[in-house]
Amino acid sequence: MKFKDLLEKAVTCNNSLLCVGLDPEPQKFSKNLSIFQFNKSIIDQTTNFVCAYKPNSAFYEAQGLPGLEDLKKTISYLKENYPQIPVILDAKRADIPNTARMYAKAAFEYWSADAVTVYPHLGLDSIEPFLAYQDKLTILLIKTSNPDSGVFQDLKTKNGSYYLEMARIISKWKYPNFGIFVGATYPKELAQMRKIFPDKIFLSAGVGAQAAEIKAAVKSGIDEKGAGIMFNASRSIIYGEDLGSAARKLRDEINKYR
Amino acid sequence: MKFKDLLEKAVTCNNSLLCVGLDPEPQKFSKNLSIFQFNKSIIDQTTNFVCAYKPNSAFYEAQGLPGLEDLKKTISYLKENYPQIPVILDAKRADIPNTARMYAKAAFEYWSADAVTVYPHLGLDSIEPFLAYQDKLTILLIKTSNPDSGVFQDLKTKNGSYYLEMARIISKWKYPNFGIFVGATYPKELAQMRKIFPDKIFLSAGVGAQAAEIKAAVKSGIDEKGAGIMFNASRSIIYGEDLGSAARKLRDEINKYR
Repeated sequence: MKFKDLLEKAVTCNNSLLCVGLDPEPQKFSKNLSIFQFNKSIIDQTTNFVCAYKPNSAFYEAQGLPGLEDLKKTISYLKENYPQIPVILDAKRADIPNTARMYAKAAFEYWSADAVTVYPHLGLDSIEPFLAYQDKLTILLIKTSNPDSGVFQDLKTKNGSYYLEMARIISKWKYPNFGIFVGATYPKELAQMRKIFPDKIFLSAGVGAQAAEIKAAVKSGIDEKGAGIMFNASRSIIYGEDLGSAARKLRDEINKYR
Repeated sequence: MKFKDLLEKAVTCNNSLLCVGLDPEPQKFSKNLSIFQFNKSIIDQTTNFVCAYKPNSAFYEAQGLPGLEDLKKTISYLKENYPQIPVILDAKRADIPNTARMYAKAAFEYWSADAVTVYPHLGLDSIEPFLAYQDKLTILLIKTSNPDSGVFQDLKTKNGSYYLEMARIISKWKYPNFGIFVGATYPKELAQMRKIFPDKIFLSAGVGAQAAEIKAAVKSGIDEKGAGIMFNASRSIIYGEDLGSAARKLRDEINKYR
């Protein structure tokens, strides 16, 4: 799978498991900058310290068509200037098969993302249109990082919690190109998932503004080679004074526990 | 709630529970038409027979920025010419609270939708940013219409299936402005949901191309006044020869069982 090779190279070359989230909120940065210019500045300062970039579609959609134009420019800029760094479109899509085809086409063909985040709650038929893009990674969100995530995801089934039962069923799907998302705010669940999916690529979030404990998250999430996972941070990095230093510091903090 | 008034008026005036899905696939219609022109033609022919229109975001996103421009034009056209017909943005979004705010802003402020579809699997904190728009309807997807929907949604918890347990928890949320989505392909589940949510507005899909049995779906989904639900059809209406007749026929078929 092309994504796996791309990510492994980025992890090795930058010695990093850090993914930087490109989640621009215009009221938080200078009015003289467009979203694209804001992103470009983040990218240029952090590119040697990351293994991936993850624009979250919501922040662009909130600005309407001009925001989405800046998403297009941002991904084009990344592909032209830093093709060695994979781009994850954090779109959190899910729909019935006929419509999922459209979301997959948007993510992989139009936006040119290398990976996309998708909810698995509709079953395999809703995921297959994404998995049909064999060079791409489809990241299945199993346990989210928010405080209320347990309300439904932790409901007890006869074989344990819903998210755990979901993971066990997914582990039987014979596809090489899906990844797993678990919030870093839930290290116990992250460890459970790593046990069920020893070889899958993981994405996790919450080591920044959501204050997940880094040591616990890293120890729980890494594979047996001390890699195989991307830890995303957005707000805690992108609104700082010295973004390069902040990214390097978080990268090094993560590396301490690999 | 403004949405409720808007919908009730449209249902009464057009004597209709039919929602027409605006899901354009350019390869299925004349190359001489833009997506907007295709939609405009559907709208102009069906406007007297529907209670709502439902553009599915995926079909626009698949065409990239030009497709999204046509979505904007379509909703503007509806708001200018047929403000009495509510517009449901079928976006099927869901994210943690900080990001959900952005999706809510996009749906209600930028796209000017009257309602939006959202997954509840992340818990109440992820839904509240949508519910904060008190005049709008946030439609929670509980049981989807696809064949594989049961793989996870039907997992057994100690109080019945996951989707049922989810519905019972949601029924305790003290918000007036959420609606419920259940696929019309699952009439038994639709009836269960109507029992749990006697007064909520429902959206259902599958009475067209997915071949749900209309009688069973209507009998299961209507409230005690014989309304309170929108039945969406897309592919079975919008690619026909005589769209007005097709919409009227389906409307009348639905009305037979109210």
